[in-house]
Order: sequence, then C-alpha cells, then structure tokens
Amino acid sequence: MKESEIIRKKIRNGDFVGQTSGLAEGFAQANLVVLREKEAQDFLLFVQRNPKPCPLLEVTDVGSPYTKYVAQDADLRTDIPKYRVYEKGELVDEPTDITKYWKEDLVAFLLGCSFSFEWALIEAGIPVRHIDAKRNVPMYKTNIKTKPAGIFHGPLVVSMRPIPYDKVVKAATITSRFPNVHGAPIHIGYPELIGIRDLDSPDYGDKPIIKEGDIPVFWACGVTPQAVAIESKVDFMITHSPGHMFITDIRNSELSIF
Amino acid sequence: MKESEIIRKKIRNGDFVGQTSGLAEGFAQANLVVLREKEAQDFLLFVQRNPKPCPLLEVTDVGSPYTKYVAQDADLRTDIPKYRVYEKGELVDEPTDITKYWKEDLVAFLLGCSFSFEWALIEAGIPVRHIDAKRNVPMYKTNIKTKPAGIFHGPLVVSMRPIPYDKVVKAATITSRFPNVHGAPIHIGYPELIGIRDLDSPDYGDKPIIKEGDIPVFWACGVTPQAVAIESKVDFMITHSPGHMFITDIRNSELSIF
Repeated sequence: MKESEIIRKKIRNGDFVGQTSGLAEGFAQANLVVLREKEAQDFLLFVQRNPKPCPLLEVTDVGSPYTKYVAQDADLRTDIPKYRVYEKGELVDEPTDITKYWKEDLVAFLLGCSFSFEWALIEAGIPVRHIDAKRNVPMYKTNIKTKPAGIFHGPLVVSMRPIPYDKVVKAATITSRFPNVHGAPIHIGYPELIGIRDLDSPDYGDKPIIKEGDIPVFWACGVTPQAVAIESKVDFMITHSPGHMFITDIRNSELSIF
Repeated sequence: MKESEIIRKKIRNGDFVGQTSGLAEGFAQANLVVLREKEAQDFLLFVQRNPKPCPLLEVTDVGSPYTKYVAQDADLRTDIPKYRVYEKGELVDEPTDITKYWKEDLVAFLLGCSFSFEWALIEAGIPVRHIDAKRNVPMYKTNIKTKPAGIFHGPLVVSMRPIPYDKVVKAATITSRFPNVHGAPIHIGYPELIGIRDLDSPDYGDKPIIKEGDIPVFWACGVTPQAVAIESKVDFMITHSPGHMFITDIRNSELSIF
C-alpha cells in the first residue's frame, strides 16, 4: 500500500483532520473545487483558458465523488481532512466530511498544487523562504486579468517566493518542467509592473521574508479559481479548506514533463 | 549542397569578406579560438570548467585545420571571412586567410555563438532590441569569476538583451533549451548585483536600447574566452574577427536539447 493510500484511509476514518503539508512526502497534493453541473461547464472552460493558475489534474464524471486517474480507491467526500462549503459566495460550513452535501449533479475538479514545485525547488537546492520559516506563502491579486468563461472572471492571483538572485533563472527553468503545478513563473523582479504595490501586504497568506540579494519571483496561484468562483458568487461550491489538501497517488517527480 | 557549404566556399575563394550576421539563415555560427598545443590543454580544461561562456562545439586534432563534426569539407584556415592574430595578448594582424600562420602544433576550438539563441528568441516572438536597431549587442565584464585553469583566469563577460517584462520568463526557458550556445541567462533584472555599474557604458559592443517595461537579462558571452586569453597574455592565439564567424552545417533548431 502506498503511503498516500495509508494517509487517505486515516483521513477517511477521521483519524487525521490537520493540514497536509509535509504528509506522504513525494506524493503530489491537489486543490479541490466542487460545483454543480451547470457551473461546472463554465468552470471547465475557465480552467482550460487559464491553465497556469488552474492546472487541471482530473475532473470527475457528473455525480461521481470517485477519482479515476490521480488516486485509486479515493472518495472525495471523505478523503480530505477539512472542507469549505460556500453558498452564493458566502462560507456556510467547514466540515470534515461532505457526504451530506453530495448530490447527483455535482462535479469535482482536482487542480495541481504548488507544494509539488516547491519540492522540485528544494530538491535543486533553492531555498523556499516561507517553508524555512514555517509560514504560509504570500499571495497577491494582480492587474493581470484571467480569461473569462461564462460567469467566471476576475484577476489572476499569484504566489511570491523570494529567490536568491543567483538562483532565479534555475528556479524559472526548474518549475517550467512542471506545467501541471503552475509551471514557470509569470513574473520576475518588479511587483509594480503586475499591479502589486506593497509586498509586505499580501492579499492572502503571510507577510514574506525577503533576505538580502533575494529577487521576488511570482507564480500563478491555485487560489485564483477559488477566489474567482467566490467573487462570481457561484450558487454552490465546495472546496478543500486552505492547507488541507487531497493527497494523490502521483509522485511529484512524475509531474515533470522532461 | 547546403547553403552553409555554398557560403563557406565563397569565403574560401575570397568572394566574401564581410560580417556573417544573417548569412545562411537557420545554420549555427561559431566562434574560433586557435592555440598552441601546450596552451590548448589548459584551454580545454578552462572551457570544460566554464561551459556557459564557453559552449564547446568541436576541438580539432592537433595540427589539423579541418572540422570533423560541425561542418563537412571545411578548412578553418580559409573558411572564415576575417581573423585576428595575437602575440602575447597584442593584436598583430587581421588577415582574411591564416594559411601562412598555420603550424603543426595548433589546435582549433569552435564555440557556440549567441546568434543561434537569438534566432530562437525571434522565432518565439521575443524582440531582440539590438538586432532591430542593427547594432552590436552590449557586453559587460562582471564581478563573477570564471573557474581558472592553468594560465587562463578572469572575469565572466556577459551580453545583455533588454526583454519586455512579460516575456522574460519565456526568454529564460527558451534559451535554456540551447546549452550549446550559452543556454539560460545567468542573471535577470539587477545589473549592480553582478558588478555592472552603468548599462549605458558596456565594455564591448554598442550602448543598449532599453524600452519602457524592458528588464535587462544577462547571458554568459562568448567574448569571455577570448578576453580571458588576451588578459592571460597567451603567447600565440588566432581568433575570428568580431562578427566574422565560422558558419557550420548544424541547424540552430538541432541545437535544442528538447
């Protein structure tokens, strides 16, 4: 049994309800977005048009809470430690199981997560400041618009990692190997050019730790689709709770395209 | 007959003595360094230790002026439009033929040239400012030291291309596919961090044209090995004259590693 399966089983049985960072090391984790069929059609188009913030790993069949490709024997109603339930853009519940919310018209989207490319950076000897400081990554709304689809529209959200200046190019080329987990950065060096006024005031996550000689590097962020869905006041949506991800059976190294 | 062969024949016959930029489009051009066997041993080690400024395409056998791999039926004594001959670091001649200088103890090095990756940038829709303005690329000595070998030591020389900020990452990832022609940049964005005080005063080449929203991107430069050899006051050296390159039979696209 893979480590990922063991941990999913624990989560399913209610034996683990915490954050998943660092769990089942080497296995990719995924963001969850569950929508009704009607909005799911628009959302599928939205992620297709915005692959950098929304790298799609799997979409379930309508009504099915089971993954076919990214994990074996997984049930998306029970195998994530904590969920968030939204109605018309408002948070209404934060359960550890969504069986009672599941309906025949729901579709689940699993989207790649930056944990995987952070693993690749660390493997390459590139420090990841917020991980070293046990903080959350700082995230910012930008002046870059996502490509709209149906009811979904809004700004691109980016995560920022301060990278030592002599490792910036390596960070860009390494993450370009991982398009399914946001891929190459979308900007290097000048926050004001993408509409970010103050790096010390992120829109989500924690204040960054920037060391001397660090250059700010920005990647498209998986918060984008959730932020866009909330702002679009979609009727009904379930997501994972921040930091409480779905653990797949795919190894991070398998996500590299070369 | 390939276009590259046709042009080499013209050059050999003395029918062409100009710069090679834009000639035999699609074919890679190469820098030439010719040294005596004794210094060639050190130089081979130097290029092995510094592959980014010195991407080695071919080394000839001792005493042979003929290429075996990068071009068919080429004679390095006659197939370059113009040469430079140095004695103890001083320029002593700039002939169009080096037959009279050739000796049995000489070794020729052919090194990859940035023309090839500029071709890749242009193919990808990334403007190359100095080409658009028909100028030479600006080049700068940095505070980055090359790894020394024998008598060869000195600073890394870089070329700089101003790139629109929203194309910088693409420029980095595209050129990373071409390690044989300097590969990925060595620095992005902050010239002072690599010891460059004034972008408007390059050590070699022309003053840059930087448009609004451009970010300076720096690549290791093929001038490095020549500059290092001159500064090391090597007894005897022949190089191509700047801009007068050796035209190979290798297509630029073949140099891509993926």
